[in-house]
Amino acid sequence: MAVYTDVSDEELESFIASYDIGALTSFKGIAEGVENSNYLVHTGSGRYILTLYEKRVRPDDLPYFLALMEHLAARGLSCPLPVHDREGRTLRELAGRPAALISFLEGLSLRRPGIEHCAGLGQVLAQFHIAGADFPMARGNDLSLPGWQALYDDVKENADTVIPGLKDEIARELAHLETHWATGLPVGVIHADLFPDNVFFLDDKVSGLIDFYFACNDMLAYDVAVCLNAWCFEPDASFNVTKRRAMLQAYELERPLTEAELAALPLLARGAALRFLLTRTYDWLNTDANALVKTKDPAEYLRKLRFHQRVTSYRDYGLGEH
Amino acid sequence: MAVYTDVSDEELESFIASYDIGALTSFKGIAEGVENSNYLVHTGSGRYILTLYEKRVRPDDLPYFLALMEHLAARGLSCPLPVHDREGRTLRELAGRPAALISFLEGLSLRRPGIEHCAGLGQVLAQFHIAGADFPMARGNDLSLPGWQALYDDVKENADTVIPGLKDEIARELAHLETHWATGLPVGVIHADLFPDNVFFLDDKVSGLIDFYFACNDMLAYDVAVCLNAWCFEPDASFNVTKRRAMLQAYELERPLTEAELAALPLLARGAALRFLLTRTYDWLNTDANALVKTKDPAEYLRKLRFHQRVTSYRDYGLGEH
Repeated sequence: MAVYTDVSDEELESFIASYDIGALTSFKGIAEGVENSNYLVHTGSGRYILTLYEKRVRPDDLPYFLALMEHLAARGLSCPLPVHDREGRTLRELAGRPAALISFLEGLSLRRPGIEHCAGLGQVLAQFHIAGADFPMARGNDLSLPGWQALYDDVKENADTVIPGLKDEIARELAHLETHWATGLPVGVIHADLFPDNVFFLDDKVSGLIDFYFACNDMLAYDVAVCLNAWCFEPDASFNVTKRRAMLQAYELERPLTEAELAALPLLARGAALRFLLTRTYDWLNTDANALVKTKDPAEYLRKLRFHQRVTSYRDYGLGEH
Repeated sequence: MAVYTDVSDEELESFIASYDIGALTSFKGIAEGVENSNYLVHTGSGRYILTLYEKRVRPDDLPYFLALMEHLAARGLSCPLPVHDREGRTLRELAGRPAALISFLEGLSLRRPGIEHCAGLGQVLAQFHIAGADFPMARGNDLSLPGWQALYDDVKENADTVIPGLKDEIARELAHLETHWATGLPVGVIHADLFPDNVFFLDDKVSGLIDFYFACNDMLAYDVAVCLNAWCFEPDASFNVTKRRAMLQAYELERPLTEAELAALPLLARGAALRFLLTRTYDWLNTDANALVKTKDPAEYLRKLRFHQRVTSYRDYGLGEH
């Protein structure tokens, strides 16, 4: 949770007045996301989320993220929609930060998604990949192999203070992935961070996706691998094959995976596990004790990485019956 | 700001289902108040605030606070209204904490209230005092003289680490107040914490009061003194006589102050300044660096205390033309 940047009444009122959305009636800092400052804004015309982008988001990337949300919404995917001000702009500045006002999305994120929710996630992930296919902008994935190497360089000196032996374990995994990383798979726009807190549900049906601030162009199956890690492991680190099956079957009803994508899944899942192991280790080492952020446990992703290291074929995920 | 207690989806859904307010459609932790955990809840029937009471609130006091809100609302004062569950209860338990669901109040709190807002505050404060006159329950003021002495005993050892000389300065003030504290003034239900963040405005008119968790039975003029301190000083510590006049004139249109109350105001304002100096000093010394709370500056209230110490008559507040 996070509310970092404080906005004064005067700044806020003049900001809201520059949109055609009625007068401000309520304004509350909310605990949503850990990267940016978010406020829930009520006006005469409804509910909105005001996001102030903090340092982790590069201002140059914001036009990509905002245009992507508009593109996806225009293709029927339920996601927050940036609101245009009276001059037609979606990207603005407030309290010295880049800022955007976006529509409010109803729904609740689930802490413990069940099998039906994994199916819902699989379906919407494929719909997202299809809806993004004709998005005209491109953004590289900062958090793929070269980014992992850079993160490793940042954390290696103190990694063993987080988990003993972590430095060497990451180095070995990085070396393996650098030699074997997948190429030639279908690419497109991926969400790259589709954890349960970024998927809203109403009555056990997906009501929408949020938080597109890691979206980029990369292998679509890598996005599937991120979701396998985030949705199909139980709290005790066991891999739930039933959830995996529900997710992939629903995905494939919309967009069948190629044989090459299926074959690459174990490797992509290792990479996806390493990516979150690295960023969590980095955050663990670099989070100010006063920051209003819950630091997530790196060990969870080390366990997931080790699980995938023992997998030799996608059939080991229970994909044999595929 | 604060969200302390984490509520699981399952707990929340069954909690909300025990009220006749429709199905849950959204749930967000909000940054409101510093004492309790607050969530903004949307259901099929509207918006609500869910409050989980944290350790600073005594569970035994909660029936007083909740009944007071119902009493005030029934007399036309705009404030959050506790919602009754299907069994008629307003005080519940959730995630191991006492909890209540209350109605959502529209409006914005002002960081820099102007003269007209001080007038609005004066009027609603008097209306609050009048509406509370026939409230049948009673609760002593924990944070009056005996409470200040207890707080002083807790902080005196380290007070000088907060502000050099603070220990002796508080001791002298306490001795003065113990000798001279007011008696015999009109008493009733007071809010006792009516700072700008607890008063909502819409279109520069008061839309309601919130946060009744320091309310108690004490001298009504003490509540006025708390507001003089909280609303009539400028950020540079100067006392704004125009704001004072706007506040008191509006108050007196609803409820004229007695001569004895006016004469006691300088002393009550010293006590009110000491009360917040003590609690802020206590919080400064006792706040865990990881707590999601902004610690408020004790020095602000030391400056206010010193201002009132130099006042010899209420006429020094510009009340001569009263």
